[in-house]
Amino acid sequence: MTAEQLVIVGGDAAGMAAASQARRLRKPGELAITAFERGHFTSYSACGIPYWVGGAVDGPDALIARTAAEHRARDIDLRMRTEVTELDLDRGRVRTRELDNGGRETWTGFDKLVLATGARPRRPLLPGIDAPGVHGVQTLDDGQALLDTLEASAGRRAVVVGAGYIGVEMAEALIRRGYRVTVLERSAQPMSTLDPDMGALVHEAMCTMGIETVRGTAVTGVVTGTDGRACAVTTEDAEYPADVVVLGMGVRPETTLAAAAGLPLGESGGLLTDLAMRVRGQDHIWAGGDCVEVWDLVSGRTRHIALGTHANKHGQIIGTNVGGGYATFPGVVGTAVSKVCDLEIARTGLLERHAEAAGLRFVTTTVEATSRAGYYPGARPMHVKMLAEHRTGRLLGVQIVGREGAGKRVDIAAVALTAGMTVEQMTTLDLGYAPPFSPVWDPVLVAARKATRAVREAGD
Amino acid sequence: MTAEQLVIVGGDAAGMAAASQARRLRKPGELAITAFERGHFTSYSACGIPYWVGGAVDGPDALIARTAAEHRARDIDLRMRTEVTELDLDRGRVRTRELDNGGRETWTGFDKLVLATGARPRRPLLPGIDAPGVHGVQTLDDGQALLDTLEASAGRRAVVVGAGYIGVEMAEALIRRGYRVTVLERSAQPMSTLDPDMGALVHEAMCTMGIETVRGTAVTGVVTGTDGRACAVTTEDAEYPADVVVLGMGVRPETTLAAAAGLPLGESGGLLTDLAMRVRGQDHIWAGGDCVEVWDLVSGRTRHIALGTHANKHGQIIGTNVGGGYATFPGVVGTAVSKVCDLEIARTGLLERHAEAAGLRFVTTTVEATSRAGYYPGARPMHVKMLAEHRTGRLLGVQIVGREGAGKRVDIAAVALTAGMTVEQMTTLDLGYAPPFSPVWDPVLVAARKATRAVREAGD
Repeated sequence: MTAEQLVIVGGDAAGMAAASQARRLRKPGELAITAFERGHFTSYSACGIPYWVGGAVDGPDALIARTAAEHRARDIDLRMRTEVTELDLDRGRVRTRELDNGGRETWTGFDKLVLATGARPRRPLLPGIDAPGVHGVQTLDDGQALLDTLEASAGRRAVVVGAGYIGVEMAEALIRRGYRVTVLERSAQPMSTLDPDMGALVHEAMCTMGIETVRGTAVTGVVTGTDGRACAVTTEDAEYPADVVVLGMGVRPETTLAAAAGLPLGESGGLLTDLAMRVRGQDHIWAGGDCVEVWDLVSGRTRHIALGTHANKHGQIIGTNVGGGYATFPGVVGTAVSKVCDLEIARTGLLERHAEAAGLRFVTTTVEATSRAGYYPGARPMHVKMLAEHRTGRLLGVQIVGREGAGKRVDIAAVALTAGMTVEQMTTLDLGYAPPFSPVWDPVLVAARKATRAVREAGD
Repeated sequence: MTAEQLVIVGGDAAGMAAASQARRLRKPGELAITAFERGHFTSYSACGIPYWVGGAVDGPDALIARTAAEHRARDIDLRMRTEVTELDLDRGRVRTRELDNGGRETWTGFDKLVLATGARPRRPLLPGIDAPGVHGVQTLDDGQALLDTLEASAGRRAVVVGAGYIGVEMAEALIRRGYRVTVLERSAQPMSTLDPDMGALVHEAMCTMGIETVRGTAVTGVVTGTDGRACAVTTEDAEYPADVVVLGMGVRPETTLAAAAGLPLGESGGLLTDLAMRVRGQDHIWAGGDCVEVWDLVSGRTRHIALGTHANKHGQIIGTNVGGGYATFPGVVGTAVSKVCDLEIARTGLLERHAEAAGLRFVTTTVEATSRAGYYPGARPMHVKMLAEHRTGRLLGVQIVGREGAGKRVDIAAVALTAGMTVEQMTTLDLGYAPPFSPVWDPVLVAARKATRAVREAGD
């Protein structure tokens, strides 16, 4: 009996979690696993890069969950610095090119294929955008390059383009390194992953942290100095001097190969899969991680969410299915949590604009409450915004902005969304209470009570 | 039209929340509200007493959510230091005695009655138990008396009887005040609200905090000195010198009046109600807070849980119903959270012994994981134990012992229990992830994965 051949494209979270799980279930004699990764690193926490850059975490080794050598020791044939350049689905093979070895090209056949090609940073086509001193922060290689720039630079002015998760986390990192930071954001408020009223709270907090945040402004280019390096960022209205420029405009699915092979893509360009994470219409091809669109349990649509925790779950599920077991990924509710210095920012479910786009009618309420009993030391205010469906009262989304203890409270709403609870059902949830942990009415319960009244008052 | 008469027995969380909510819905001309409280304080956080005693919180004023004067300003006729001594249900009236006014007795008629008589501390009938220097910590009056003893005492040795929530919180409070603390516990481990294996983790942590915890020992008496004050606590095996003795053996429902009136009580002695919090079989009598048994959604039995957050919810629901609205209390899942110094302790759902008593067959798994990404500063280990039903895989309970960020994670399980999720469904929950908040697999997800495997491996 010859072993079945599994080929994995992309050696980061989703790809290597799939490889590891498949190996757990199938011996090398039954299943040969070959994984191709074009970068220098494998199985690492890209989400940790801002903390490495900011100096809170030693890197890059600490961010690597499992090295290439460790994977190889478990009978996974991991080929680093090897790019897959073509998928030949008809003949069941992939073409690869070695990036460090004179570009040697090879074909490798597969019985089963896993696509885990990840995402690539949005990088607008603007003058100067490719100049030295302009950095993305998507990969460990990116992180190292940025650190090299920071260490070589005498100046202390940084411009961050984009005030989403990566943007605000990088603003914190650069503040910690003693930079004067300006964040340029196209939307009306930072954190456009929140509704604007909640984003405004983030803006206010960033101001008090000394992070200049310019809102509603489009970047028009990067100015380079006589040395060819970036020295300023221009917008329609102004020019912002910069010793370093960080791009934090989010990512889009990296599906060039999949598109060329005619595989089905969604609106965002992410691969479409079934619940077993198999590419739609394909029997032997799976896809997961930042390159796919996932089912959104709240809106009933697919969407692209690049997040390490999803990538790991996808990999686990793909590996189980590839290895002959059974597992499915039921979908997401859109939970995310982040922080800028001591400000915690979280959301789950739908924003107002998402709910509108999904054809939903809804009420919104916002409450201010404290993380602990008001009298307990360290009680800090937090804002909780809640969206509930008109008439049914079904929870549609929660956004939280606050200090210590605020962010992970979003998990309560994430589980309630998954279970399809109404806001009225949430008012009697039996949540952990003790003065150091919560007021007698947890902020999420306070929000649920107010939302319940709003649903009732809105009538039919 | 004369106003309907509402009488409330007990002026703390449940009673006054009911009064406030009823007042919101009904004007004084429609509903007259009279509340009787035998103590000196109203609407206060008894849960805050350990932090007041420990000096973290200024008391007692900070612990009072609303004063008697504030209630009266909202047209609630609150009579302090007035004890209800008899319920005359046939004639619809209660007999009261003024504690400060020569014991004057009065009868007050009611159309509607709310019983919110709370709980009383367990106080074993032992020699010396009533000596000066032996303190319960159930009421603000108790707290003040304990503080008076602490301030008058020259010694620095404290004995705490009982290592449940109140016991361990009082141990922390006394350690903070510079006492050498010995905790005497009858069970095999402290925190018998956890399974013994999880209680052992608490014991271990208490040892390293310098809190001596003597397990499996029954107190036989309190020794008094020549001044008549407590000076030691004796067990079957030993004598423990004590300048102060704190009783933390839990509470039982205070239902003496209700029992005398023939109202229905459960196994624990708590009042039995319907889902609208009406006393079973009674049209015009409601009960809530520490004096009732609540429906346990996981075991399908009623049980007694004394907790301020439930009392407040009950009061809110009773007030709504008394005021002509509609609200129900669906039940609890048994969530509780506490801490000893920096150790966080939480549970929800059933312990092993509860599950056995409910006739359930189950698997248990325990995992150790970190509160944040392993590489992120401040990542601390936590233990998560999970019980899942045999074959169905339905979540039955979760216990958590860990450091910062451990305790409130129990809310994830509390919502999942309420929704009747299986541990396998929990493995794909979309929980908030970012390195400062969680590893890529949240500890609760790690536990759910292990429990899922255990259910499968247990077969049929």
